[in-house]
Parts: sequence; C-alpha cells; structure tokens
Amino acid sequence: MPSNQQILLDNRPTNEAAASNFKLTTVDTPALVDGQVLVRHHFLSLDPYMRGRMNDSKGYTAPQPLGDVMIGGTVGEVVDSRSPKFAVGDKVVGMGGWQQFSVVDGNQIGALRKVDTTHVPLSHYLGAVGMPGVTAYYGLVKIIEPKEGQTVVVSAATGAVGSAFAALAKARGCRVIGIAGGLEKCRYAVAELGFYACIDYKLHDTAGSLGKAIKAECPNGIDGYFENVGGMVLDAVLPLMNAFGRIAMCGMIAGYDGKPMPLMYPALILMSRLRIQGFIVSEHMDVWPEALKELGMLVSTGKLKPRESVAVGLEAAPEAFLGLLKGKNFGKQIVKLV
Amino acid sequence: MPSNQQILLDNRPTNEAAASNFKLTTVDTPALVDGQVLVRHHFLSLDPYMRGRMNDSKGYTAPQPLGDVMIGGTVGEVVDSRSPKFAVGDKVVGMGGWQQFSVVDGNQIGALRKVDTTHVPLSHYLGAVGMPGVTAYYGLVKIIEPKEGQTVVVSAATGAVGSAFAALAKARGCRVIGIAGGLEKCRYAVAELGFYACIDYKLHDTAGSLGKAIKAECPNGIDGYFENVGGMVLDAVLPLMNAFGRIAMCGMIAGYDGKPMPLMYPALILMSRLRIQGFIVSEHMDVWPEALKELGMLVSTGKLKPRESVAVGLEAAPEAFLGLLKGKNFGKQIVKLV
Repeated sequence: MPSNQQILLDNRPTNEAAASNFKLTTVDTPALVDGQVLVRHHFLSLDPYMRGRMNDSKGYTAPQPLGDVMIGGTVGEVVDSRSPKFAVGDKVVGMGGWQQFSVVDGNQIGALRKVDTTHVPLSHYLGAVGMPGVTAYYGLVKIIEPKEGQTVVVSAATGAVGSAFAALAKARGCRVIGIAGGLEKCRYAVAELGFYACIDYKLHDTAGSLGKAIKAECPNGIDGYFENVGGMVLDAVLPLMNAFGRIAMCGMIAGYDGKPMPLMYPALILMSRLRIQGFIVSEHMDVWPEALKELGMLVSTGKLKPRESVAVGLEAAPEAFLGLLKGKNFGKQIVKLV
Repeated sequence: MPSNQQILLDNRPTNEAAASNFKLTTVDTPALVDGQVLVRHHFLSLDPYMRGRMNDSKGYTAPQPLGDVMIGGTVGEVVDSRSPKFAVGDKVVGMGGWQQFSVVDGNQIGALRKVDTTHVPLSHYLGAVGMPGVTAYYGLVKIIEPKEGQTVVVSAATGAVGSAFAALAKARGCRVIGIAGGLEKCRYAVAELGFYACIDYKLHDTAGSLGKAIKAECPNGIDGYFENVGGMVLDAVLPLMNAFGRIAMCGMIAGYDGKPMPLMYPALILMSRLRIQGFIVSEHMDVWPEALKELGMLVSTGKLKPRESVAVGLEAAPEAFLGLLKGKNFGKQIVKLV
C-alpha cells in the first residue's frame, strides 16, 4: 500500500482564509475491495469555489466537513483496479481532493471519467476542458445568451474561466472585453486569448474611475457580464449594462470572507431591467457534454490556448490557493503531484 | 372649449422629490381634428414609477420632459369624439397624465381602451385591474413562477401591487407573506387581503432584526420575493431565500432619490443561486390580456378587494404623490378629478 499525503480542512476561517486552516497528514492507502479503483493524482485543481466551501454557511452546497480531505478536482492515472470498467493505465478525471491518491467506487456514476490525451494534455481537463471551461460555457451560453455583435465582459479575464469565456464568446461573434489585474495579464489577454481589450483594474481606486475605462472600450454598452470577483468591479460594470442585460454570477471572491461587500446601486437592476443569475456548474450536469465537446475542439484547434500556474508538490497547495484568492495566479492554478 | 387644469414637471429633484418640482397651470382644450377624441378624466393614478421618470437618468425608459404634463394613467369618459371608434359616453382607460382632460388620437393602437364598469368600478382599472395588477401578475407568474405550497413574500403588501399579488399567489396555493409599514396595514393585509401573515417593518431598526421576524413566518424559507421598496427590506429577505429562489425587482422606492442604497451581501445571489430580474410591465404588453382577465375575475368574485387612497382635486396630486413615496397611502393611490 503506498502512503498517501493529504491536506485536511482543520478549522474554518473567521474572515480571510489562512494556511493555518489546513493540516497536512499522511495515511496508508487502504486495500481495494471489489469494484474499487486506486487513482494516482497527477494534478490537483485549485478553484475559487473552494473558499465558499470552507464556510459553514447555509445555501451554498455542502460545506466542507472539518477533518476531511479538502475537496477538489483531480486528473490522474489508474494504478490498481478491481473494477471491470477501469484498467491500470487509464487516464481519468475525478474529484479526488487534496491528496496524492484516491480510492473510487468504479460503479458510482460520474465519479471517474476516462479522458483521451491524444490532442488535449491531461492537466487541461481540470481547466479549459473541465469544470472552469464548462462554467464559462454555462454562464455565456445559458445565462447571457449573446447575439452576434453584442458586447460581453468578463472579470478575472486571464483565469481558467475567463480565457475559456473569451474563446467561446469570440466563436459567437461577440466583442469580448476583459478585466484583469496588472499590465502583464492585460497584454496577454489581448495578445493570446482573443480579447478585444482588457482593462487593468489595479490602475483604478474607485468604481467610477474603473467604469470610465471600461466604457471607453464598450461604446455600445454591455449586453452580458460574467462576474468572477464582485466588489468594485461589479459596481463599475452595473451602470454600463444595456437595457435587458444579463449578468452571470459565478464568483464573488471579494465576498467570501464574510465581510459585507455591498453592491452600491441595486436600483440599476430595475432601471436597466437586468437579469442576474447565480449558478454552480456542478448542478447543471446536462450541459457538460455539449460544453466539453466545443471546448475540446477549441483547444485542439488552437483557438483556446490555456495558460497554467503550476505549484509543485501537495504541500504547496495551501499557499497556491491563498494566492489564487488574491489574484496572484496567472492562468489556471493547478498543483503538480507527480 | 372647456379649460383644462394641468400639472407640469417644472424642474428635476436633486435628491428627494418636492412639491416645488411641479407647476400647476390652466390651458384651453384645443378643438378636435378628425380622428381625435376628448376624454374627461375621472381618476388619475399615482404610482412609484413616476419618481424614476422625474430623473434624467440613462436606462430607465424616457425621462419625463421638463415643461410637459406629468405622465400618468387615467380613467374617464369620452365627452367629444371625431373618431368612429369612440362614442360620447364611452368609459376609457388611457395615459392622459396629470390633467383634467386629454385629447387622444383614436387610431393610435393601445392609446385608449374601452372598459366595462358593470362588475368592476371604473377606478379599479387604474389599480387591481390595471397596470399595478398586471405588474403583480408579471412578477409572480412570469418571474417567480411559484409552485403550489411554496412561500412567496411581497413588500408594500397593502398597496395596489401587493394586494393583487396576494390574491394571485393565493389562487396558486402559495403561502403568501406580506411586509408593510404599521400595525393597521398589517392587520388589514391578513384580515382582508388573504395574507397568511404580515410583518411590520417599522418595528425593526436593522435588516437582521426584520429578517428574524420574517423568518418566523417562513419556516421553510422563501422561494419567491416581489420587491417593491428595496433598502433594508431587501437586505432582510436575501439571506432567507431558498436555493434557486427568484426575485422580481419591481420597485426600489428607497433608491430613486439618487443616494446609494447598497445591497449589503450580493454574494448571496451566488451562494443561493438566485435569479433576480428587473422589469417594467409596459414592456410586456403581450401579458396584459391574460393578466387582466384573471384580475377582473378575482375582483368581480370578491377574491380581490382593492382598497383605495383617494385625494380630491388635481391640485392635491403632488402632495399625494410625495406621500405615496413615503408609504403614507393605504391601498392604491388615486386622485378624484370629477
């Protein structure tokens, strides 16, 4: 039995998440029983939604239990199998969590999915051709429902969701504008990700100032906004929304810490007759097949070039995760375990 | 030619609307040309949306031009006609504005609608069987889309919209809870309007305190909320919304004055996967026939007993309107002109 490093949620954050919320431990992997599969994780995905799960709040699906391995998406390889459905050597995507190995019931629907790494590198199944990509797809296609020629905006533009959003929106003939932190990210968004323009929010102290910069790139207003961060950025975008605009609420990083993060002018929702919809992509599994098909095609044809921030070793996960919450990553944040 | 008292929008409010924003004047009614109809208004409707039109802000449809007669719904009687479509004596609903008479082009689609006063008193076509009633219908049926047994909540519960909302929600088997200002209104909501319970927001200083009182009447959470006021009430309701809850944004009286009226925890939109939709009922004319049919039936069978606050004489309109914005009315606010 190989030994298995794990990171547990040890205690809940009172406001900002901290490294001390996590605990590193090592256990033996248990012997398999019939039907089970042992997966060695090659990469662990770090995503903003994990911050929400660290809170014990009503409404958000299933808070992460204390003392359990932190949940998280993983890609890896089957290293032992007592299931007829999986063979040693199969490349698989699952929710293995923050650990080196996981034992999975091969009969549990959707728990493990075999993937083909001929045209798409394994790690991208955690990003562009995985949960973040489908998240971008759901928000754009199912909530924003853009028409050709419309203007759509996304915050955290160079992240895994933002870059997939750009490729999907461009394929639909939209003018797609990004918002990101720092000149380097903004340049990259335009040069590599297909954004028409990208606004650096770090150059602005107020929603009014940021709003002017966004407006300059959106002369016809904004028809759809994909929200990944909340706070000042949302306040800057809201007054620019066209009548009957749609806002897909996917992330509110700025609000996960429990501090109030007010939306200053909610009356604009009425005045501009907006539709704002919050969603969690794991609750819309019916959309995954069509989304993954398009995303896989965009990646394999080079129209979507995912960038990754790679931390090395499980013990590096907490720091990389805290950095992600502060926008320190540049591209999809993953942890390389093998 | 009869002389015609009018109230014009003289200047725009800088923050709170005031009587000095309006100007009373008297003109002669012009001679009719072919196709025109002269209507004598019996009742003028006063509605919160008018406050939005007084601002010169982008997004909200057509600001009221300065120097023009204030817009507003009216019911009255045809007193002269050069249109084959309308005869002297016809009872009609229109948008005659804050004046005693209006001249209407009889050929303009939707400008005047003949109504039957056999079972529904004329003034109710400005309220329960008019724009406010259809507003309640659209928010409940098209946005909230309640299922039998679900809990729905409405603010400004004893107003024209709130009372229609209660009757429509009750007809769909919902538990309908009201929020209103003052013990008298709350008692009336339960005794006469069919609310299961009504919470007096004036007894509470904070959203937290108000939220506890609402929660006590909503043991299974809130599935749909119809927002007529905004501010503290919205902050109190938001944390009580069930997953996949719907909020129809119809009025934000607290936000019309241009002061920021923040929504304190917008992250709840994501955490509870809410859908929030702003709307203006005049942009959804396709819904009016089905809505008016049900509302007329509810009134004529006594299941919806509309209450009216009646101001007398056109010169009383500004003060009655300012009182409406502060919640001083009790039931549908109208002005009796004849």
